[in-house]
Amino acid sequence: MVPQSYPGVFGQEPLAERDTGYVAGVDIGATNLRVVLADGSGAIVARQSASTVGTRDPQQVVDLIRISIDQLLEEDGLSRNSLRAVAAGAPGVTDVNAGIVIATSYLLGWRDVPLQAMLESALGVPAAIDNDVNLAALGESHAGIAQGVKDFVFLAVGTGIGAGIIVNGTPFRGIDWTAGEIGYMLVPGAPEEPVGSSEPGALESLAGGEGIRNQWLRAWNPEKTRLPKELTATQIFDHAVQEDGDPVARAILQQSARLLAYALYNVSLVLSCPLFVLGGTVGMHPALCNAVQAILRQREDRAHCQVRCSILRADAQLHGAIRMALDAAIAAQRRGITR
Amino acid sequence: MVPQSYPGVFGQEPLAERDTGYVAGVDIGATNLRVVLADGSGAIVARQSASTVGTRDPQQVVDLIRISIDQLLEEDGLSRNSLRAVAAGAPGVTDVNAGIVIATSYLLGWRDVPLQAMLESALGVPAAIDNDVNLAALGESHAGIAQGVKDFVFLAVGTGIGAGIIVNGTPFRGIDWTAGEIGYMLVPGAPEEPVGSSEPGALESLAGGEGIRNQWLRAWNPEKTRLPKELTATQIFDHAVQEDGDPVARAILQQSARLLAYALYNVSLVLSCPLFVLGGTVGMHPALCNAVQAILRQREDRAHCQVRCSILRADAQLHGAIRMALDAAIAAQRRGITR
Repeated sequence: MVPQSYPGVFGQEPLAERDTGYVAGVDIGATNLRVVLADGSGAIVARQSASTVGTRDPQQVVDLIRISIDQLLEEDGLSRNSLRAVAAGAPGVTDVNAGIVIATSYLLGWRDVPLQAMLESALGVPAAIDNDVNLAALGESHAGIAQGVKDFVFLAVGTGIGAGIIVNGTPFRGIDWTAGEIGYMLVPGAPEEPVGSSEPGALESLAGGEGIRNQWLRAWNPEKTRLPKELTATQIFDHAVQEDGDPVARAILQQSARLLAYALYNVSLVLSCPLFVLGGTVGMHPALCNAVQAILRQREDRAHCQVRCSILRADAQLHGAIRMALDAAIAAQRRGITR
Repeated sequence: MVPQSYPGVFGQEPLAERDTGYVAGVDIGATNLRVVLADGSGAIVARQSASTVGTRDPQQVVDLIRISIDQLLEEDGLSRNSLRAVAAGAPGVTDVNAGIVIATSYLLGWRDVPLQAMLESALGVPAAIDNDVNLAALGESHAGIAQGVKDFVFLAVGTGIGAGIIVNGTPFRGIDWTAGEIGYMLVPGAPEEPVGSSEPGALESLAGGEGIRNQWLRAWNPEKTRLPKELTATQIFDHAVQEDGDPVARAILQQSARLLAYALYNVSLVLSCPLFVLGGTVGMHPALCNAVQAILRQREDRAHCQVRCSILRADAQLHGAIRMALDAAIAAQRRGITR
């Protein structure tokens, strides 16, 4: 694989000059585990993924991470001693200081998992953890489209919706680690009824991947569309932007973009944020980016913000994890506790 | 006047121990100028106010500030030499670092006024300036209901609506000094049409003081209410909470509270903010605070935030200005440039 390297920004540092070590970046998903190995400059040199379907126990996931890293090192002819640090993103509320995953969605079902300590114990190197959307924001700021932008918001639109906020080059996580939970935002057109903590929020119930699918199912009518009833959000968007595009798909693209644009506008009013990066499986669809940007342009009087598609795409959180692992390795080197 | 003193918080410091000097805090309103003198502990020892109706020229306002401060010093038998610093709040976008008021509403009509330098030149002491809502937030954090709370949002509901955000004990002003402009927030029930920069925003067009009055005018009907057609927002709220309260007034209180609660909920999702302080002539009405809190309580699953009325009331921004002036005086003492 060709290494992807990136220039320095925000005090970004490589490992000490003569250190030939590596770091591991991990993305723990509800159904999939991804592990990459990166060199001291942050360039990815190897990667692996594994299914986590049926693997909800945290210790089993940590064991899977250890096995994956060992395999990657071995395949590259590297010894375990060349691993300097590891960082992992979890799909839930994460206490970065204590190294604890406080809560994830029902698919993983984790509560108060001391993931940092478990990784350090399993791998014998410094570990760091964060929420996956925060890591994606960090990735875009260090290796993606937001390089050099000190204030921006990464919006992840997948099944649900969440935001990673970068203020002055640093993730803004909020005092209880839940900043950026904008899937619950109340905007015109979204349902007003309060929802429980395990239910989709007002915004994501219409504009998240599942919400968009549900809109389609409700709007689908064989007299109005020739498309099949079973479509994913991105398939709906693909059909919306074809020349002679499907009118129902177009309406759903516009409605989803309008709700997301309102949410970004609201975030921009609070933070005075000049850039939004759309990511996640649904959010990175160019048709959605373009439609959201067009709606925000009508409100430029108040909110001068740009909307861009993620360029790291699914790798955004992995690049964030690499950066966090490099920082952990550098901090350990400074404390003189490297191996 | 009995001095109001307050305990230290967030590195709050009095002037050097043997310094018997004073600072001035100024609130520049569109129709009114208020000036206070405070001792080294931040306690207000004297105050004065003057009309600014017809006084839009920045130099005239600065002259008025100088005259007011000189009068206050003289009345207290203090020499001009005992003044250590001054800080002023302006009703508009303010570049705190450059000391420039970038823009105010049409009533003052200021554009790019170097207010800090003008005050320093007029008074011969260090000066500092900020947006008035940010200063009110700072005031509540140092001398008001938010003492000891490191993360909270001050919501000013007067004619319009704006927010002052405190993150980790410090005002969060945004990269172009416009963070917290939530009068433009889009919430369910607010109009969706884009508005120009001189028009009231979506939220404030219904839930600001003028917006509430307009709601009343539209709803007023002699068959439904025995109250007069001409009422202010606070008078409407007074009538709403009387035993056997007016039904139209009640409905308008509920509608205004609902829109404000939705806006606070949205802010809370972005920042994960545990406390909101309501201030401004309309915002500090207890009936509004209680109604907003009741609506937010229905959404506690997601946003665990408290709503409190300002206790400093109209003095909040003056206490913020005092704190800013004390900080400017202390910084000058450290640099050894006191007189």
